[in-house]
Amino acid sequence: MQRIYMDNNATTIVDPEVFLAMEPFFVRMYGNPNSLHSFGSEVKPSMAMAMEQLYQGINASDDDDIVVNSCATEGNNTVIMGIYFHSILGGDKNHIITTQVEHPAVTETCRFLEKLGVEVTYLPVNEEGVIHSDDVKNAITDRTALVSVMWANNETGMIFPVKQIAYACKNRGVLFHTDAVQAIGKLPVNVQEVPVDYLTFSAHKFHGPKGVGGLFIREGAPMVPLLHGGEHMGGLRSGTINVAGLVGMGKAMELAVGNLDYELSEVLRLRNKLEDAIAAIPDVLVVGKRIHRTPNTTLASVRGVEGEALIWDLNRQGIAASTGSACASESLEANPVMAAIGADKDLAHTGVRFSLSRFTTEEEIDHVIEIFPRVVERLRDISSTYAAGGGPACSVSPEQS
Amino acid sequence: MQRIYMDNNATTIVDPEVFLAMEPFFVRMYGNPNSLHSFGSEVKPSMAMAMEQLYQGINASDDDDIVVNSCATEGNNTVIMGIYFHSILGGDKNHIITTQVEHPAVTETCRFLEKLGVEVTYLPVNEEGVIHSDDVKNAITDRTALVSVMWANNETGMIFPVKQIAYACKNRGVLFHTDAVQAIGKLPVNVQEVPVDYLTFSAHKFHGPKGVGGLFIREGAPMVPLLHGGEHMGGLRSGTINVAGLVGMGKAMELAVGNLDYELSEVLRLRNKLEDAIAAIPDVLVVGKRIHRTPNTTLASVRGVEGEALIWDLNRQGIAASTGSACASESLEANPVMAAIGADKDLAHTGVRFSLSRFTTEEEIDHVIEIFPRVVERLRDISSTYAAGGGPACSVSPEQS
Repeated sequence: MQRIYMDNNATTIVDPEVFLAMEPFFVRMYGNPNSLHSFGSEVKPSMAMAMEQLYQGINASDDDDIVVNSCATEGNNTVIMGIYFHSILGGDKNHIITTQVEHPAVTETCRFLEKLGVEVTYLPVNEEGVIHSDDVKNAITDRTALVSVMWANNETGMIFPVKQIAYACKNRGVLFHTDAVQAIGKLPVNVQEVPVDYLTFSAHKFHGPKGVGGLFIREGAPMVPLLHGGEHMGGLRSGTINVAGLVGMGKAMELAVGNLDYELSEVLRLRNKLEDAIAAIPDVLVVGKRIHRTPNTTLASVRGVEGEALIWDLNRQGIAASTGSACASESLEANPVMAAIGADKDLAHTGVRFSLSRFTTEEEIDHVIEIFPRVVERLRDISSTYAAGGGPACSVSPEQS
Repeated sequence: MQRIYMDNNATTIVDPEVFLAMEPFFVRMYGNPNSLHSFGSEVKPSMAMAMEQLYQGINASDDDDIVVNSCATEGNNTVIMGIYFHSILGGDKNHIITTQVEHPAVTETCRFLEKLGVEVTYLPVNEEGVIHSDDVKNAITDRTALVSVMWANNETGMIFPVKQIAYACKNRGVLFHTDAVQAIGKLPVNVQEVPVDYLTFSAHKFHGPKGVGGLFIREGAPMVPLLHGGEHMGGLRSGTINVAGLVGMGKAMELAVGNLDYELSEVLRLRNKLEDAIAAIPDVLVVGKRIHRTPNTTLASVRGVEGEALIWDLNRQGIAASTGSACASESLEANPVMAAIGADKDLAHTGVRFSLSRFTTEEEIDHVIEIFPRVVERLRDISSTYAAGGGPACSVSPEQS
């Protein structure tokens, strides 16, 4: 059976070019870059090239730092715990602002800090699934140490107003972190245009390997390392550098940015084609306006059908989709974004997310367009909560753009 | 020019079998194991097998946890910071015991905690480079939260009395952590025989890939995660699992343990052959008795010659050795182990470490035996501090076993 992968917000195929770039650094060039001999020095040019690819990819300055780590979860924890040690335990601040729809790597770290006495404001999103920069501005107090708002949401694809938030923070002298995991390779990410202090990304979300990520730190922004030790990465992140992972992430970044035009035109076109077909099914709602969304993502709510059931049925047909964040898939809880945007209770469990990539083909899209309505029909036939013609009665805006 | 790698305590070649096991998980089986569809589920059997290989490798019980993370630096930080949050900030303890010769991932984390008001005892090693378990016993107070002592030292290869220390801690109700990075694959590591509470290891030290490690947590031992987020690894370590890395580490563990007899006989024989030749050079001292050392390591002090100069000269001959820990190589500081064992000041910078592996051949050993004395002679000829016949005048015991 042909299998179709439409869960690229969870993880992505490693681009064969990326794998080719990594491959020499396992069995052939295995030196520790900290070693003084040739086995150590011979890996350095490739590492330097990878770092250059990362800097160029987000337009960082040579004076800024990009710390290579193990994933965006580590990056997010590093920023938030670092600010705790620097500005809260080691300073006079006591407040962090974030949103209700961040990745768990942000919200769970904030919840951990709440137990230690830190005040955290979790801003809600509006009916479109985004927050307004004014809400951030209004939440800032004299004791705010950090604002952490994602660049784009993993479940809806909604793009957050990070530029306005960054300037609002800058004007108030508050540090700003953004989790850009879902933005790299899908949107232009330029740290000169958007004055963030910290930005996290993860290679496996843009066709790089799992187990390696990056943390951008603006020149001058305070940083307390999460991992203490052998002073790797200029003392900002200890631990022997994952050379193959770094080289792969650099190549993946170069390819992601190089393919951005394709993503913003062709992937967008395929996504829209799929989305039009989905939205044409009765009582199906697509969350959020297209112009405010990453080009690869559609989150749809199918009245009367559990998202889990949809995923299972699609899987039987060889189609891989998701109910939302892969991290929450196994817990079977209501989609937190659906809850946050105020969808009525009937819809909270009905989300199905399709997320495309530059590896998605038109043939695959056509196949999903053929299969998906049948799956919905079958499940509605056996649904106890769905009566055809009942119509939607919820606060989610239907797709309009 | 033939190149010879004798720096296996810094990092190791990835075993080609390990790479073969990992290779499918980049381009072909790239799913996120948390996903509900077939791309997610198809990677799980290999992950389960790898976990089994890890459990068997250290003889862990099914009730214990092995947390897969990014490296031993992360593992060491996780244990020490976890105990800080659990027993010190969140309890009535205020004291940690460790040694002066731990890896920086332990000592630097302890130094960080000292700044937060935690008391840390850094036990010195004796003239053999080891600590006595009685010293640990005597240092324990009612406020001791954790003892952290490595299984074997990275620079000298000296084996520490972890079994006695583990029982001493158990008797006093104090948690015990051991950094076993230099023990896996070189010594039998059995967590049933040695009742440690926490044990860290890193794949790239036993012919696995860089960027992946493991943390053993005894059933019932407290654990506050270092990385909060999507509740991966049973909530103990968030972050998308590095599937290829885990599969590689499992295979590497299986091979390391499977080759232990070879390591303890053949690698030992080759190391001893090399060491005999080194020790036969006038005014050269080998640190520590063989019977107390890992089978692959020799740390020698060459009077009158800077370790750095030796490494450079050996490198020009294609031989990769080290002055000690790779993590400290670039800082050019005096070898901390040499300082701790009380070698006189003249010897502190004269260490050169050869560390072998199961990939080391007799031909390579013979080549080093031919080259090394010439390198020493050449450097002594131009040394300002060495006069032949001056003889040793230091407290380091010459090799006797």
